[in-house]
Amino acid sequence: MSKLLVFGHLNPDTDAIGAAIAYAHFLNQIGEETEAVALGTPNDETRFALEHFNVPVPRVIEQAAPEVERVALVDHNEFAQSVADIRDVQIDYVVDHHRIANFETAGPLYYRAEPIGSTSSVLFKLYQEKGIEIPTDVAGMMLSAIISDTLLFKSPTCTPEDVKIAQQLAEIAQVDVNEYGIQMLKAGADVSARSAMDIVDGDAKTFDMNGHKVRIGQVNTVGFVDILKRKAEFLDVMQSELSKHDYAIFLLVITDILENDSIGLVVGGDTTPVTKAFDQAITDNQLNLPQIVSRKKQVVPPLTDAYMS
Amino acid sequence: MSKLLVFGHLNPDTDAIGAAIAYAHFLNQIGEETEAVALGTPNDETRFALEHFNVPVPRVIEQAAPEVERVALVDHNEFAQSVADIRDVQIDYVVDHHRIANFETAGPLYYRAEPIGSTSSVLFKLYQEKGIEIPTDVAGMMLSAIISDTLLFKSPTCTPEDVKIAQQLAEIAQVDVNEYGIQMLKAGADVSARSAMDIVDGDAKTFDMNGHKVRIGQVNTVGFVDILKRKAEFLDVMQSELSKHDYAIFLLVITDILENDSIGLVVGGDTTPVTKAFDQAITDNQLNLPQIVSRKKQVVPPLTDAYMS
Repeated sequence: MSKLLVFGHLNPDTDAIGAAIAYAHFLNQIGEETEAVALGTPNDETRFALEHFNVPVPRVIEQAAPEVERVALVDHNEFAQSVADIRDVQIDYVVDHHRIANFETAGPLYYRAEPIGSTSSVLFKLYQEKGIEIPTDVAGMMLSAIISDTLLFKSPTCTPEDVKIAQQLAEIAQVDVNEYGIQMLKAGADVSARSAMDIVDGDAKTFDMNGHKVRIGQVNTVGFVDILKRKAEFLDVMQSELSKHDYAIFLLVITDILENDSIGLVVGGDTTPVTKAFDQAITDNQLNLPQIVSRKKQVVPPLTDAYMS
Repeated sequence: MSKLLVFGHLNPDTDAIGAAIAYAHFLNQIGEETEAVALGTPNDETRFALEHFNVPVPRVIEQAAPEVERVALVDHNEFAQSVADIRDVQIDYVVDHHRIANFETAGPLYYRAEPIGSTSSVLFKLYQEKGIEIPTDVAGMMLSAIISDTLLFKSPTCTPEDVKIAQQLAEIAQVDVNEYGIQMLKAGADVSARSAMDIVDGDAKTFDMNGHKVRIGQVNTVGFVDILKRKAEFLDVMQSELSKHDYAIFLLVITDILENDSIGLVVGGDTTPVTKAFDQAITDNQLNLPQIVSRKKQVVPPLTDAYMS
């Protein structure tokens, strides 16, 4: 069999990178030649994790077909969130924890998804089922991915399984979950040195909602005061991205990781679906998103519903 | 949690019915209230299996939403092959062994697919992983499903895993695989008493190929001579189904289960994709499909390619 590239979504977060590393190792153990790559430069939080566990930064690719015929996707399936030439390669494996949409294959494949907190939790089960040992550094990246996706178990996407799996991974990785977790999240929440473009679009994903291209970014912070001083700058970038890519709206979710609360910034021709989805008034392109921390579970579903009706 | 309906595809074959029964039992063991139902009356082969293992014939449903909010799909995912109101219910589980296409969900779900011979083989792994015991009658239906989908291990879709799993199921079900398998396949291959409509459309599925609605039926026989005496009758039914449902083409694959060979009958406005896909001339709406026995692996992919180019 020819070599497989293994990668997570565009604008990778820690689960996209950690799960790619973990699945590449797993597939290698069951006989595949693999390489974990990334569809973008790792963010500060992911870099902190990679450095902490001494894992090399994965190579960034923009196309897959010039190098390989076969790929494995982790932490995503929607083509709009994948490599640009995804339609030109064969998808042999997917491991994920998102909805399935705007995805198709020509032939049968291995697909494993579960509605739990992170792709790395699903991967932990695969390792257990096959009785494959998880190396210390891989366990560290999987743990980081779970902490990142669940905001240290505080997100509504977190399940008791994720917590149990994280504890087992922490033992293998030899770290204290809470101490390491807060350190890692804080490393990602310091946005002072980041450009407006990076903050706005660095973690953004595009969703097709009833034919509308909806762009949703999310950034973690500690407190809202500092970051909101740069609001005008963010809105400028969002407006120009909106025009450039023909998005229906661009919504930036700013999440306070210690308070578990968010504020939304939004631009777009018609923002009534946002008002409707969250039952919050938009004033000066800004709305409160009280107790919302999960894009997947608390932002995408109500917004999809609002666009459907 | 509310009750789940568990079902396979329209025009159910033995895997669609067997896997629904097996997954309903499995989900029940992990705490779900379930009922295995069918999207059509079981065929002769499936009836033989149900009678042999003393399993009641599942109830046939035409809609899901009036009864339940949540469903589990087995042996299919494409909405065109599912219950008519699939978009009105929440899909919480899928276990399958086909390509993924024309399928989407609003939220995360449990999805398990592997590129192996039958859905029941995938289900066997789930039982093993959770350490859940398979009752004798359920094992019998799972075994029947594997035999049916792999034509007693002769289809190119069959993997060494399917053979091994079938042997383990045969032990639980207390039958001899080969003896029982030939009996069951022959029960399904006797088409003398079946109407032309049932033979042509009883196992047919619709595939979206580059915007064309392609209908592909398959029927198992022993020898071609007898069945081809009814060719004119079949073509009449295919032509009238084509007009009624606006299919681009209707292809009936007649498979000799002992010789592992097929003949195709085809109607449609433009049949050149069929000629191209199989590199066979069509004479009087008929073409040879030498050594072809698997719709999934040997018919759908080349035909999809032919429609794409």
